[in-house]
Formats: sequence, C-alpha cells, structure tokens
Amino acid sequence: MVRVGIDVGGTGIKVGIIDAQHQIVGEGTIHTFTDIPFEEQVQHIAQCVLDTAAAAGVSPADIETVGVGIPGIANSAGEVIKCTNMGWFHVPFRSVFRRYLDVPVHIDNDANVAALAESVAGVSKGTSSSVFITIGTGIGSGIIIGGKIWNGFHGIGGELGHVILALNGVPCTCGNRGCLERYCSATALIRMGREAVAAHPESMILSMAGGDPEAIEARTVIDSARANDPVAVQVYGEYIDYLSQAIASVVNLLDPEVIVIGGGVSKAGDFLLDPLHREYPKYVIFNDQPLPEIKLAVLGARAGMLGAAMLS
Amino acid sequence: MVRVGIDVGGTGIKVGIIDAQHQIVGEGTIHTFTDIPFEEQVQHIAQCVLDTAAAAGVSPADIETVGVGIPGIANSAGEVIKCTNMGWFHVPFRSVFRRYLDVPVHIDNDANVAALAESVAGVSKGTSSSVFITIGTGIGSGIIIGGKIWNGFHGIGGELGHVILALNGVPCTCGNRGCLERYCSATALIRMGREAVAAHPESMILSMAGGDPEAIEARTVIDSARANDPVAVQVYGEYIDYLSQAIASVVNLLDPEVIVIGGGVSKAGDFLLDPLHREYPKYVIFNDQPLPEIKLAVLGARAGMLGAAMLS
Repeated sequence: MVRVGIDVGGTGIKVGIIDAQHQIVGEGTIHTFTDIPFEEQVQHIAQCVLDTAAAAGVSPADIETVGVGIPGIANSAGEVIKCTNMGWFHVPFRSVFRRYLDVPVHIDNDANVAALAESVAGVSKGTSSSVFITIGTGIGSGIIIGGKIWNGFHGIGGELGHVILALNGVPCTCGNRGCLERYCSATALIRMGREAVAAHPESMILSMAGGDPEAIEARTVIDSARANDPVAVQVYGEYIDYLSQAIASVVNLLDPEVIVIGGGVSKAGDFLLDPLHREYPKYVIFNDQPLPEIKLAVLGARAGMLGAAMLS
Repeated sequence: MVRVGIDVGGTGIKVGIIDAQHQIVGEGTIHTFTDIPFEEQVQHIAQCVLDTAAAAGVSPADIETVGVGIPGIANSAGEVIKCTNMGWFHVPFRSVFRRYLDVPVHIDNDANVAALAESVAGVSKGTSSSVFITIGTGIGSGIIIGGKIWNGFHGIGGELGHVILALNGVPCTCGNRGCLERYCSATALIRMGREAVAAHPESMILSMAGGDPEAIEARTVIDSARANDPVAVQVYGEYIDYLSQAIASVVNLLDPEVIVIGGGVSKAGDFLLDPLHREYPKYVIFNDQPLPEIKLAVLGARAGMLGAAMLS
C-alpha cells in the first residue's frame, strides 16, 4: 500500500506516491490552471495522481489515502474553505476528487503539512511537539502537539505570520499593522536593506545589488553581513532581534520541544541559527530552564507532498 | 473517594476537598509563611489538608489524589522548578508532601489549573480547546488542548503575558520591553488612566479617584467610561483595542474553541465582552470564518483549588 501526497502551489501542483517508509516512489507535476472551473481543476489533479501511480507501477487499489496541502484552509469534511491562489472558496474538494479515486482524502494547510512531515520524517522526527516556521515572502507556520497538527478548533490557527508583534507597526498586506511577518520575513529583511542603503549608499548591500536598491534580495543583506559590511551587520542584527522576539513569543506561549525553520532565509544556515540561539532566550520569561532548540528544516520542497501523504 | 485541590497564593494557601461532581465538600486556609524552611512549609500544608479532610468527615484513605496550583512552574516529577513568591526553587514538593499523605501529587501553574477548572466544570465545560486569560495586576494564561493543559514540553509555556505585543514598547517587570501584559493588564489600564488625567485633569477619572492620580484603579477608568466621560471613553477604547489585538493573536496562532477571561478586569462584564467581540475579529486573518467566542470565567477564586484537584 502507498499514500499519495499532493502539494498545491501557485504555479505547479506536485503529486508524490509515498511508501510506508516515507520514501517518494513516484512523482508527477502539472501546471496550476486557475482559469478553468473548479471541477475541471480537480479532474486534472486526479488524473495526475492516476498517471503518476501508473508510471510508478502502483494500481489505484494500492492507494491507501490521498492528502492535499493547500495554501489556504480546509475543514474535516474535505471542503476547501479558502484558497485564494486557486480561486477556491467553500468548494467540496474531497467529494469531487473521489469521483476519480474513491479513497479517504484529507486536506490541510501547506505549512501545517510541512510541519507534520518534518516531525515524522525530518529534522524534528521523534519529537511530539514542534513549531515549524517557514520564512520566505511571508511567514507560514504549523504547530504539532502530541504528534498531530493543531490547526485550531475552527481550522484557522497556525498563522504565526499575523500575530501582532508591533502595535501600530508597519502596514501588512492583510490590512492590519505590525504583523509578525512584516518584521521577520524575507520581505522584511529586503525592506530593511533598502532603507539602510538609502541612508548609507556606501554599503556593500548596494554594490552587491549592482547599485540598484530594487535588486536587493534577502541573501544580498545576509551575504553582506557575512562579509562584515558594517551597515549589513547592523541591519541583519536588527532582523535577528525581531526574529528572536518572535521565537521567544512562541516559546513563552507554546514551549514546543523544538522549533524548525524552513523557507528561503533558512539557507543562511548557522549564520542564522547561531545568533538566534544566542539572542532568543533573552526574551523568554523562564530562560533559566531548558529551552527549545532551533533546527533547520531538512525536507525542503518535498515537505509539502510528504506531509500531505501523512495526513489522516 | 475525594480529590484535594491546593491553591498556593502569596498571602494564603487554600485547601479544598472535592467530590466526584466537582463540588467542594470541605475547605481550609492557612497563612502563607515564607520565612520558614521549605520542609516546614510543606508540613503545614499537609497538616491543613489532613485537618480539612477530618473536618469534612473524610478519612485520608478516601483521598484519591492531591493537586497543587502554584504561581510558578513545576515538572512532572513533582518538583517545583520556580515559585518566587514562596521562595521555592528546584524543591521536591511531591516527595516531601508524601511523608504526610502518601497519594499521587500533581503540581501545575495556577493559571493553568484555573483554565482546566473552567474547561471541566466552568464556563468552557464541554469544550476540548480553550485559552484562559486572567487579567489582573499581570496577565496569566492557560491553554487547554484535547481537554488537557498544554504547558509546553519544558513546562514553561502558557505565558501569554510575556508574548511581545509592541516591539521596543513599554518596559516590563521581566526586564524586556513591550510584553503583552504591559498593554492588557489592569496595571496597564491604570497607567493609561493616569497618563490621561495628567493631560486632562477635568476627566471624571480624576474626580472619581478623589483628585489623586495614585488612587486611580482599573475600575475607576471603566466606571468613568461607562458614564461616558470623554477622556475615559478614549482611554478604555484604546485599552480594548490592545486587548483585541492580543486576543486576535491568540486566535491567529491557536484558534481555540473558546476564550475565557477572568481576573479583576473581567468584572466589567458585558462592558468588556461586547466591544471585544466587535473589535477583535478585525485583527484575525481568516475573519470570515466562525471564530472563538469570548466568555467570562465563572468559578472565580474557587477555580484554583478546583482545577488543582482535577490534575492527573
């Protein structure tokens, strides 16, 4: 028997056939079409599952469950409540999908399934509680308690990115101000880098970006800080401080066994982990106790399909 | 069989003998002595348990478990890790207590046991997830998930009061800045009231306090706002806005079935609940979905001993 994991993304939909050892034994991808009716979208996805299974020598009868990770929220009845990228609002994904493959279908948020994947087969394997934080354009997160995803009673939890970190702070895309992702995402680091070079055009940040502030990326700031550019060191230090306060808030409230960081910014590796481990305990109220370790996610882009396949 | 709940407070220690229907069938109190050795403190507490049981006609053999709620943290080995008010740091409470009464002894934080009490026998009875927030001098909180206290892997979670709400904000007693309790506690409302009357001495807040800013209490501001004093309405509105952002952060991250508010400020009743229900959804990312209801705690001062008795 195998499980199928589907990772629904804005540009592509990835399908994985996963064995009992959490190994990917078959993989397929289709382009994300958003300009066709919902039922056709699901039909395409189901067809990709059947094709991928066939290519892997797996018969539909050997598929135990199908799990779907979406950039949005779903309920336990198998309905997608909201998935803006796909144009899905209150759509019966499970029942439509089962026209093509009649197996149990589970759906959850993409950051939640990535959290589950890391906790079952990744860096937080063997732990019963963890918080996964993915740091990219925004901040995604997933909470694992008792070995299971905790996405809230109404299925709307796990949104660390929109916890308020700064009362009346930087305006957020969500319409509020001071959301955590405005201070801790790659987008935040880029904004801080651009503000810094406006005041300090001599910074390596600007020269590494070819003199164009619009070309500054998170890694431009990180690499400049690594090279000891004073402006970049200052900007990155401030970013680490924000992220430390965010992590300490998670610890003060939830105190998981481990905190897992994924996403683009996590590629900074020890240059991210070392200062976080040094700084975040300052903001923890019981910081003379053993504290959660921060680890880097290891499953990368496969976390979505692996975690989706683990849903039950 | 009965269970014993002990509520350890800074001025008094309350002991309750609790029956299977969560009714208090016997109650005792002793003064909190902090100037005697730990072992003597425990001996006094154990003696109070035995005396209270005897007065209620309960034999020691009928006591199933003893639970203790402390203003601090403990571990599953029955050691109090830190309870500053009592001067307890890494002390073997369970093993000393069992010299006098050899039954299972469980210890947890006072806000956590109050959260448990409300979720088993109080306003959140019948729910499987809730967050209890007690608003007084500080902010205490307890998280219930799957019907059980979640106090973290290292036992240091559930400290909502020290989640950062305002980067670089008001200095906190903990040494950091911008902790949530600096904006949402009764102490915060008092501070805001005092600041307001400094600028607006004509406010009813000051006259209700007999002209002495130091005499302003949380209820002075609340009662003045209720009486439509413009300055108080403004201050209380700002306080409600802060508390709304705090509650929305809890919902964005944890999304419990219900949020329970206790402590002194909760005495404002609907004058607190109504504006919170109106304001907090603005700050919730998925606010077009069903959201947690906010309810007032109903067990009051008995929550501590009741919840302690429920520990297992």
